[in-house]
Amino acid sequence: MALPLIFLSDYGYEDEFAGVCRAVVARLAPEVAVSDLTHGIPAGDVRRGALALEATVPVAGPAVHLAVVDPGVGSDRRAVALAAGASFLVGPDNGLLDLAAARLGGVREAAEISSSALRLEPVAATFHGRDLFAPVAAHLAAGRPLAVAGEPIDPDRLVKLDLPRPRRQGGALLAHVLYPDRFGNLILDARPEDLGGGKGSISVSTIGASFAAVRGRTFADGAGGLVVYEDSSGRLGIALDGGSARKHLQAGRDDELLLEAA
Amino acid sequence: MALPLIFLSDYGYEDEFAGVCRAVVARLAPEVAVSDLTHGIPAGDVRRGALALEATVPVAGPAVHLAVVDPGVGSDRRAVALAAGASFLVGPDNGLLDLAAARLGGVREAAEISSSALRLEPVAATFHGRDLFAPVAAHLAAGRPLAVAGEPIDPDRLVKLDLPRPRRQGGALLAHVLYPDRFGNLILDARPEDLGGGKGSISVSTIGASFAAVRGRTFADGAGGLVVYEDSSGRLGIALDGGSARKHLQAGRDDELLLEAA
Amino acid sequence: MALPLIFLSDYGYEDEFAGVCRAVVARLAPEVAVSDLTHGIPAGDVRRGALALEATVPVAGPAVHLAVVDPGVGSDRRAVALAAGASFLVGPDNGLLDLAAARLGGVREAAEISSSALRLEPVAATFHGRDLFAPVAAHLAAGRPLAVAGEPIDPDRLVKLDLPRPRRQGGALLAHVLYPDRFGNLILDARPEDLGGGKGSISVSTIGASFAAVRGRTFADGAGGLVVYEDSSGRLGIALDGGSARKHLQAGRDDELLLEAA
Repeated sequence: MALPLIFLSDYGYEDEFAGVCRAVVARLAPEVAVSDLTHGIPAGDVRRGALALEATVPVAGPAVHLAVVDPGVGSDRRAVALAAGASFLVGPDNGLLDLAAARLGGVREAAEISSSALRLEPVAATFHGRDLFAPVAAHLAAGRPLAVAGEPIDPDRLVKLDLPRPRRQGGALLAHVLYPDRFGNLILDARPEDLGGGKGSISVSTIGASFAAVRGRTFADGAGGLVVYEDSSGRLGIALDGGSARKHLQAGRDDELLLEAA
Repeated sequence: MALPLIFLSDYGYEDEFAGVCRAVVARLAPEVAVSDLTHGIPAGDVRRGALALEATVPVAGPAVHLAVVDPGVGSDRRAVALAAGASFLVGPDNGLLDLAAARLGGVREAAEISSSALRLEPVAATFHGRDLFAPVAAHLAAGRPLAVAGEPIDPDRLVKLDLPRPRRQGGALLAHVLYPDRFGNLILDARPEDLGGGKGSISVSTIGASFAAVRGRTFADGAGGLVVYEDSSGRLGIALDGGSARKHLQAGRDDELLLEAA
Repeated sequence: MALPLIFLSDYGYEDEFAGVCRAVVARLAPEVAVSDLTHGIPAGDVRRGALALEATVPVAGPAVHLAVVDPGVGSDRRAVALAAGASFLVGPDNGLLDLAAARLGGVREAAEISSSALRLEPVAATFHGRDLFAPVAAHLAAGRPLAVAGEPIDPDRLVKLDLPRPRRQGGALLAHVLYPDRFGNLILDARPEDLGGGKGSISVSTIGASFAAVRGRTFADGAGGLVVYEDSSGRLGIALDGGSARKHLQAGRDDELLLEAA
């Protein structure tokens, strides 16, 4: 019984890159259902890719996750296939798979696949998605064992992802913007428990300015203003009801925000 | 026999939102074929979503249409699943499903699904697509009956979509731009019969300026200039052959245009 | 046994165009697996579509390629279905299918399909993707023969694609940018053999300025600078390791570049 193949990349939607990988899977494993996660990860943004993958594995069932955000393609970074829980993760060993593997209970088994017998020859130095990652993922989804994909390596030596961390600063919480989403919501590295209880008013400060916000569950709780809420991934988010918090706060990736009961 | 599931949203292509919903469907109903309509509806633009859905149902066969353009997610707006013709429509009750339901012959049966037994617990307050709409749509596509999805409600009390309407103004037709499409064509709320017969010259006026156009069937009929034509959805469109009418007329969503035989 | 259907267009991701075509295929041939190549080809850019298709057919197996980049829709340009190798190509006869057909070994058989018995009536003058190309492609993928799709025509009279060509200029190579890709890499009309051997330094000149580059295999070989490499399609590319060559050189589609050993 084939596993579904879920495909994430930073290949974008203008070029044929992602489509070519899909065509490779369709040829090698026509029985495998391919489902796109997203290909709109900002070019080379390994962290954003890792967070997208982390948000997906808890709600997806057993699957092969093909993930390609790979600014070091062709260099000496390793290419890996990992078994975690009842799923597999295939991609570059640059931290991209780290959060998802942890969410799945940790890596059970790991293989280095750069010279995989399953790859397409010749491997283009700049398109491992087509020639290496997609073929390996297709074969794993079709039921081939990990041992066929490559050489076993030590799971403890896989590259870890470096995430910022929130910290207390006096009575306030200093958090960082992991990324702004499509709706202009700012997703933070902090979680609700970091901020503590209460449903009251919150002051949100950037380097340049302070803004009044309320603690809420939904965007509508902001009543046209800012709301600090628990994002669907379990992290804190800041939204502007009916608008864009990103634009309102002039804040983006990696910016520091100070959150304090007002 | 499973129905195809056709998925529309304003989730965009940068984030994992749409992909996560697809992964949920793949887990709950692996036998269901998921097909994306588009996820590029402008954020929160319920009307554009409703028009896209309306354009689809006449050419799609029996299907489950999962539609999520939901600025009021988590508020007291209702979540619904509708039976119309041989198809189902699943989404927020904010007008998004209105035009498609009418095109399918009207709603035969409606259910409120906010507390559906088919939802994934806990339901995130800001991501009903993942936890509520996708699961209900998946189960309907797999053949579960509407009665299992939620509590029956009165179809006559569903929220209607408010569309602008064209009107005669002296000898001219005053129409509104429903939306510009990807090619810069302006799709209007008027239909060919509103403009009347004739294949001659037409003057198209915005607030600031007047432009010469011809009545035609194809973009090429504009011969490098403006052409007023019947769009594939049956509405009037204004195109610039080889260019963008939107840029040429400096006109966009909701703008008024005066069309008059020249 | 159905063939997979691979779908390319310039319909973009904002509108429902591509999704409507997918829904048509799902209705007419539910057994056919539809896979998107890309719908982000710049509007009307036949050449970019032809290059994307050319890059795909060598790695895809037997398939029906549905390709719609069709600025002349509804005019007297022909609509065609072609048999090439073990695959089929369906689209407008404007050069879009030319490179892929050649890569597949040339057109074995061609049919004019404008009045195809397989089309959906009435055919909208501005949306042949929905009413003509998608239905014909769906039926071919489901196993209907080309003879049913339309009238036989002479393969030698199909429209050819006009591509720029590189040339020697003194000791240098004058090449043209075919397109910049999503990562800002500039894909050229020249191939590695046009540049000659060597792994040394290369000077890349635009009209306004000269830049130092190295010959390399991977982006990382640029070591933070410009690298001239063989693209995954076999053409020369210019990349900026960790950045965008397009921005760095201020060069885009059709621009001339002079490459010379430094």
